Amino acid sequence: MSSDIWQFSQRAAALQSSAIREILKVTELPNVISFAGGLPSPNTFPIEKIKHAVDIIMDSDEAFSALQYGPTEGYTPLREWVKNQINQRENTHYTTDNVLIVTGSQQALDLIGKALIDNGTKVLVETPTYLGGLQTFTQYAPHYVSIASDEQGLDPDKLSDDDAKAANFLYTIPNFQNPTGRRLSAERRKKLAQKAIKNNLLMIEDDPYGELDYQGHRLPSLISFAPENTVYLGSFSKILAPGMRLGYVVGPESFIRKLVQLKQAADLHTPSYTQHIAYQVVKEGYLASHIPTIRELYKTRCEFMLTQLEKYMPKTVRWTKPEGGMFIWVELPEHIDTTVLLAEAIKHNVAFVPGETFFATNPKRNCLRLAFVTVPEERIEKGIQILADLIK
Amino acid sequence: MSSDIWQFSQRAAALQSSAIREILKVTELPNVISFAGGLPSPNTFPIEKIKHAVDIIMDSDEAFSALQYGPTEGYTPLREWVKNQINQRENTHYTTDNVLIVTGSQQALDLIGKALIDNGTKVLVETPTYLGGLQTFTQYAPHYVSIASDEQGLDPDKLSDDDAKAANFLYTIPNFQNPTGRRLSAERRKKLAQKAIKNNLLMIEDDPYGELDYQGHRLPSLISFAPENTVYLGSFSKILAPGMRLGYVVGPESFIRKLVQLKQAADLHTPSYTQHIAYQVVKEGYLASHIPTIRELYKTRCEFMLTQLEKYMPKTVRWTKPEGGMFIWVELPEHIDTTVLLAEAIKHNVAFVPGETFFATNPKRNCLRLAFVTVPEERIEKGIQILADLIK
Repeated sequence: MSSDIWQFSQRAAALQSSAIREILKVTELPNVISFAGGLPSPNTFPIEKIKHAVDIIMDSDEAFSALQYGPTEGYTPLREWVKNQINQRENTHYTTDNVLIVTGSQQALDLIGKALIDNGTKVLVETPTYLGGLQTFTQYAPHYVSIASDEQGLDPDKLSDDDAKAANFLYTIPNFQNPTGRRLSAERRKKLAQKAIKNNLLMIEDDPYGELDYQGHRLPSLISFAPENTVYLGSFSKILAPGMRLGYVVGPESFIRKLVQLKQAADLHTPSYTQHIAYQVVKEGYLASHIPTIRELYKTRCEFMLTQLEKYMPKTVRWTKPEGGMFIWVELPEHIDTTVLLAEAIKHNVAFVPGETFFATNPKRNCLRLAFVTVPEERIEKGIQILADLIK
Repeated sequence: MSSDIWQFSQRAAALQSSAIREILKVTELPNVISFAGGLPSPNTFPIEKIKHAVDIIMDSDEAFSALQYGPTEGYTPLREWVKNQINQRENTHYTTDNVLIVTGSQQALDLIGKALIDNGTKVLVETPTYLGGLQTFTQYAPHYVSIASDEQGLDPDKLSDDDAKAANFLYTIPNFQNPTGRRLSAERRKKLAQKAIKNNLLMIEDDPYGELDYQGHRLPSLISFAPENTVYLGSFSKILAPGMRLGYVVGPESFIRKLVQLKQAADLHTPSYTQHIAYQVVKEGYLASHIPTIRELYKTRCEFMLTQLEKYMPKTVRWTKPEGGMFIWVELPEHIDTTVLLAEAIKHNVAFVPGETFFATNPKRNCLRLAFVTVPEERIEKGIQILADLIK
C-alpha cells in the first residue's frame, strides 16, 4: 500500500476488511446451509403489488417526478405517511418536518455517526449489538461504553447516571434485537426513558424488526415515553423489500435539519423512484394485510428451529426464544471459540455468524447468531444436527 | 441550540445552511423563470423504455434479486457493462473489480472525501468548481488550493509541481464543467495527465456531462492518459434519470476496495431495484440512440439562450459558449454583486445561482450560472430580458 500515490485518511486507513466477512463469502454457494445471512425471505416480497404500483406511476404524470431529482428530506407524501403511522401507533405529535427519508436505515446510522461523534465521544451500546452500527460509528472514532443486557434486553439498572450524563447518545434496538432476538420488556422501556430524561441522554432507537412481532402486539417504542430524547429509525427492508433501500428517521426538528444537511452532501436524496413506489404500495393500508403473512412465516420457521435446537443440542448449550424477528442467539460452553467452530462448520457446509463481532468491548467468544427465515425446514434440521455434532 | 441534549460533532456544527439555498426555494413556484436548477429536462426521461424494463424484471425470477439485498460493489452485470463501456471508449484495460456502483455520483464524492481527507489535507480544485463537491469535501476539513482556469478550462501551467506533490488529490470536471460549461482542451488533458504522473498526483475526474457533447465527439478522458493516477466518476443522472440515483466509480483496485468498505458503512449498497432496471435499459445499446436526442434538445436550448444573451445583454457582460452540457457562466462588470442581484431578480420572478458559492477560495462576486435545459424558449427570452434590464 505504501506505493500508492494517494494517502488514505486516518479513518479510512483504520478500517479493516473483516476476516469473518471473507469466510462468509463461501456461504453464498448453493450447497451451503447458511444461518449467517440477515436477509428477509424473498417469499415475502409483494411482487404483484409493486408491479401494480410501478404501472400506476409510469402511466401517469407522476413518472416525471419519480424520475427527477427530489428534495433531500424525501418525498413529501411518504414523509406524511410515516408521520401519521408513528403518531397513531405511538401516540406522539410529530409533524412532517420531524421525518427524513434515508437510503436504508444503515444510512441513518452513518449520518448519525457523522452528526454526533468526534474523536473520543462517549457512545453507549448494548452488549452485544448490531455489527453494522458498530462498523459505521467506529469510522468516527468514539469511545464505546457497553451496557449489560440479559433475557429482557438492555438493563437500565446497569446504566449509571454518570455514564448517561457523559455519553452523547445511547444506541439501542429494543425489538427482536440483532443479534440476540431479544425484546426489551415494557417495564425496562419506561425505566430507560426516565433515565434518559433525567440525565439529558439522547437515545437512538433502531427498529427494523418492530413489525415482526409473532403475536402482533407491539410494545410502545422509546419515542412514546421520551420523544425529545429519542431519534427513531424505521425501515421498509423487512416489511416490503430491502433491495429498495428505504428507511426513515423521526426525531426532534433541529436534529433532523442537521441530518438533512449531512444527507445532502452524502447522496443529495434517496432515489425518488423507489420512494414513489413505496408510497404507492403502502398508502391505502396494504401493510395491514401484508405484515401478518410475514409474521406467520417467520414464527413457523423460528419455532421449527427452536424445536431442532431442543432436539439436537447438548444440555450445555443455551439459546434465546425470540417472540419476533429473524435471529436466535446461541451460547456455547465457555471453552468453545465460535470463530474456530465456523471454520469447521464450513467444511461441513454449514454457516453462522460468530458472536464476537457483535461486541463493542470485551467480546465473548462462545456465542453465535443463527438466522432462520431464508432456510427451508429440512435444511434447518440438517444444519442444526451438523452444528450439534461439531459442538459435541 | 445550546439547550439541545446532544452535542453535534465539530464537522456537523461547522455545516452552515446555505442562505442562497433558502432564497432559491422560492424558485420552485410555477410563476418563477428559474435558470437556477441543475435538473435535466424531464422530456429526456425514457419512460416507456423504463416501464418495459420493469415489466421484464418483475415478470421473471429476476424480481427476487432486484428486491433483495445485494453486494456492496453493485450489481455485477451493471459493473461489467460500465467496465466494457469505459474500456471501449477510453482504450483502457479495467476489470469489473475496478468498478463500484454508487447511489448517485454525489455519494462517490462523499466516499472519496472520507477516504482521502484528514483535517488540513491539501486538495486542489478548479476555479470555480462544483458546489456539491465543495460542500462534501469541506465536511472533512481540507486545505483547498484553487487552480486557475480560463476559456479552455483548468490551466495545467498554473498548477505548480510543489502543489501537485503536496496535494492528496485534484478534483476536476473536464467536460462542460459545472458551473462554467467549459471543456478542458485536448492538449491540456494530456499536459495535466503528464503533470499528475510526474508528481504522483491523484486526479478525481468527475464526468456527469461527458455524453452531453452537442457535436457528439468526445475528447479522451484523463483516465485514458493516466489510468493509475485517475479515479473516474460517471453518472446515469443526465443520460437516463436522476431520480434513480445511479452513478459509478472506476479506479485502481486498491482504491475501489477501500471505497467499498466505506460504502458498506454508508448504505450497505445502492438499491438493487434501480440497478437492475438501469442494466435492463442499457444492456442492448439503447443509449446509442437515446443520447443523441438529449444532445439535440440541449444544443437547441443552449443556442437559443446564447442568442438571447447576445440580443439583450449590455456590452460589458461576457459569457461562456458551451459545446455541451447544461450551463452558461456569465461575468458581469466587477461592481455588480450577483447575490444582491438575485434578490432583485426574484422580485421580478427570475432566478439563477450567484457565482460566489462555486469558489473554494477568493470568491468572485460578479458571476452567475444559468441553466437552460428545463426552461421553454419563450421563458428563456423573457427571463434574459428581465435580467439584462436589471443589470443595466
